[in-house]
Amino acid sequence: MHETISREFEQLDADDALASLRSEFDLHGTIYFDGNSLGPLPNRARQRIDDVVSRDWARGLIRSWNDNDWISLPRRVGAKLAPLLGAAPDEVIVGDSTSVCLFKLTAAALKCQERRKIITDEVNFPTDLYVLSGLQALLGNDIEIVRVPRHEIAAAIDADTALATLTHIDYKTAHMMDMKAVNDAAHAHGALVLWDLSHSAGAVNLRLAETNTDLAIGCTYKYLNGGPGAPAFCFVGTHLQKKLNPMLRGWMGHATPFALSPDYEPAPGIQSFACGTPEVLALSTVDASLDVFRNVVMDVVREKAVRMSELFIELVDTHCGRFGMEVASPRNAAERGSHVALRHEEGYAIMQALIARNIIGDFRAPDLMRFGFAPLYQRYTDISTTVKALYTIMETREWDCPEYRRRALVT
Amino acid sequence: MHETISREFEQLDADDALASLRSEFDLHGTIYFDGNSLGPLPNRARQRIDDVVSRDWARGLIRSWNDNDWISLPRRVGAKLAPLLGAAPDEVIVGDSTSVCLFKLTAAALKCQERRKIITDEVNFPTDLYVLSGLQALLGNDIEIVRVPRHEIAAAIDADTALATLTHIDYKTAHMMDMKAVNDAAHAHGALVLWDLSHSAGAVNLRLAETNTDLAIGCTYKYLNGGPGAPAFCFVGTHLQKKLNPMLRGWMGHATPFALSPDYEPAPGIQSFACGTPEVLALSTVDASLDVFRNVVMDVVREKAVRMSELFIELVDTHCGRFGMEVASPRNAAERGSHVALRHEEGYAIMQALIARNIIGDFRAPDLMRFGFAPLYQRYTDISTTVKALYTIMETREWDCPEYRRRALVT
Repeated sequence: MHETISREFEQLDADDALASLRSEFDLHGTIYFDGNSLGPLPNRARQRIDDVVSRDWARGLIRSWNDNDWISLPRRVGAKLAPLLGAAPDEVIVGDSTSVCLFKLTAAALKCQERRKIITDEVNFPTDLYVLSGLQALLGNDIEIVRVPRHEIAAAIDADTALATLTHIDYKTAHMMDMKAVNDAAHAHGALVLWDLSHSAGAVNLRLAETNTDLAIGCTYKYLNGGPGAPAFCFVGTHLQKKLNPMLRGWMGHATPFALSPDYEPAPGIQSFACGTPEVLALSTVDASLDVFRNVVMDVVREKAVRMSELFIELVDTHCGRFGMEVASPRNAAERGSHVALRHEEGYAIMQALIARNIIGDFRAPDLMRFGFAPLYQRYTDISTTVKALYTIMETREWDCPEYRRRALVT
Repeated sequence: MHETISREFEQLDADDALASLRSEFDLHGTIYFDGNSLGPLPNRARQRIDDVVSRDWARGLIRSWNDNDWISLPRRVGAKLAPLLGAAPDEVIVGDSTSVCLFKLTAAALKCQERRKIITDEVNFPTDLYVLSGLQALLGNDIEIVRVPRHEIAAAIDADTALATLTHIDYKTAHMMDMKAVNDAAHAHGALVLWDLSHSAGAVNLRLAETNTDLAIGCTYKYLNGGPGAPAFCFVGTHLQKKLNPMLRGWMGHATPFALSPDYEPAPGIQSFACGTPEVLALSTVDASLDVFRNVVMDVVREKAVRMSELFIELVDTHCGRFGMEVASPRNAAERGSHVALRHEEGYAIMQALIARNIIGDFRAPDLMRFGFAPLYQRYTDISTTVKALYTIMETREWDCPEYRRRALVT
């Protein structure tokens, strides 16, 4: 790679409006392209965890439920997340896993109408499909689940469709669907749409209100840097909050939880989708991690991510195309989320060789290497360094050793 | 209170086989009787959280899913908890909230049989009742939920009963049910029993295998000291594991999660009751907290807790009975869990006055003060100190001030 390219990338970093946010993280010299799987630790999250553990739990003990307002964490964190989703503060609540949140909203959406057909993406993330399979097992076979190809979804929604459950950005290829178009198509038939935003939140500029989104869920441990296994979020559009009736009912979704009434009465609004006791440590971590986004304009984040991914694709094409490396993500940035997938039959071993050089991306079977672009902590020079390394790994067949081919349990 | 009593209690502490475990905690001078609501921070949990955050997350990043075996945490923590429940290691899994765990097992239990009647305790903890209400809303009104008084439960179970969902130790009075007797009565009618062990785990010597227990759930943030909002556990007896089919299905309960197959196939055994991505921070905290119990014999813990509660009741009767303070818990220790409830119409204010003296218990409306006995970190002299304080508060009407009567949101 030419020296001029390095200088060009250095200049891009020097001009980067988001460059100062990098100090929110300590990456210990690692070049990290796996924020699409697990975001790195924000420094302020580490500080918060320490405060919550050593001060609020250790010293405040039970008093912290009141004194530190632990009880409202799901709502407070939801309200803090809402602007990143283009949602109102009282449309979002954080708690439980992505899978449980999917179940909550799918069950409620299905029970508020007579229709029995669910349309879903045939390449939806597996847990999204398993949740539907569980709901069908529970409710019986009159629930019809129809898996269709991504590009046929809008057309497949008809007057029998209760709900379409879709993933906005595909976890493998990063293909991004047009939320507004699908929402409009569904609404024209009186159907609802539930979006999985796990690969979208904190990465692209979501406009849930503007696009008349009904329902959404998503995880906070990818681009939102909430920590491993951090709780997920539920979004219920204001227009649906009075119509939907929670099925997964716990005391935190009750109108008056501390009255300890034997009879269920839902809390008003989004709070009714809370369930068990709030996960205080994890929610506090997400809360602190969201503060990194406090003065960040998502359009600026998206713009940098697009620019980075365009430069990455260009360099890969130029320097690695000859080794049979193909771009598996859409080449049109408007149809691509925040990661780029490269296809190579030796992708697993190639990725291990990169990781050994302290450049971390990930791999999805059978042949995809994923590189996640997260403008908060990445430099443009990380891209040139990475493609240089990738070129060397291919040119010298550095990947071709048993150590790099031995597959780990979690890939 | 006589000087001889103080000396007697000091001697009990000197002879206490569990005294050394107190160094596992740092209570900062607080006398803590609220481990039945939120257990205090074990020192080793603080250390573990710091390691997981600053080392495994910050530096290991995505690699820690493999390198630190995060992926198996729900099973590993379950296996560590199992001996405290009298269960086999592969009968327990940890993850999700108590409410979600209740839903998982209730839904699965109901779907594995034709019967439609659920018997439950009319004073069951509210979330347990709300979960049933949600399941009824989801499945329709042929699901019959019958709430009966605690002492009529065994008799109410009949040949139409699918399931009895019961709380082993009542959260208000600490009344403890006879698990074996109820299990036997249910099994005689071919019914299943699901126990909520939230106030039992880590407090009394459970024998789930020996008592032929079918199903149980419970929380880890009370006597197990797992941290605020820590994940709950599911127990599914070996005899039921092949019979039960999970309804709340997520990728972690799949036979081969990383094959990312679109078709659901349950993992074998207890793993099928996992759902979403493991809550790494919280599970690691519980894991470390359970190490406090490593060399602890639960019979010894229970014996000390009974002795402490007997002494407490005796002192309260002697010194506070005159102020209208009544013991609301069963006086027979065999029918009492690990806390003692005292009834007084000014209980809320009295508890606030105690808390102001750095002696922490809690309050349940309308008139119960609860004192949880947790032998791992309590001294016998804590009891004499507490009853002395209680006597002074009553004698001087210290409780009778507006500040102590102002109710907090969370009680």
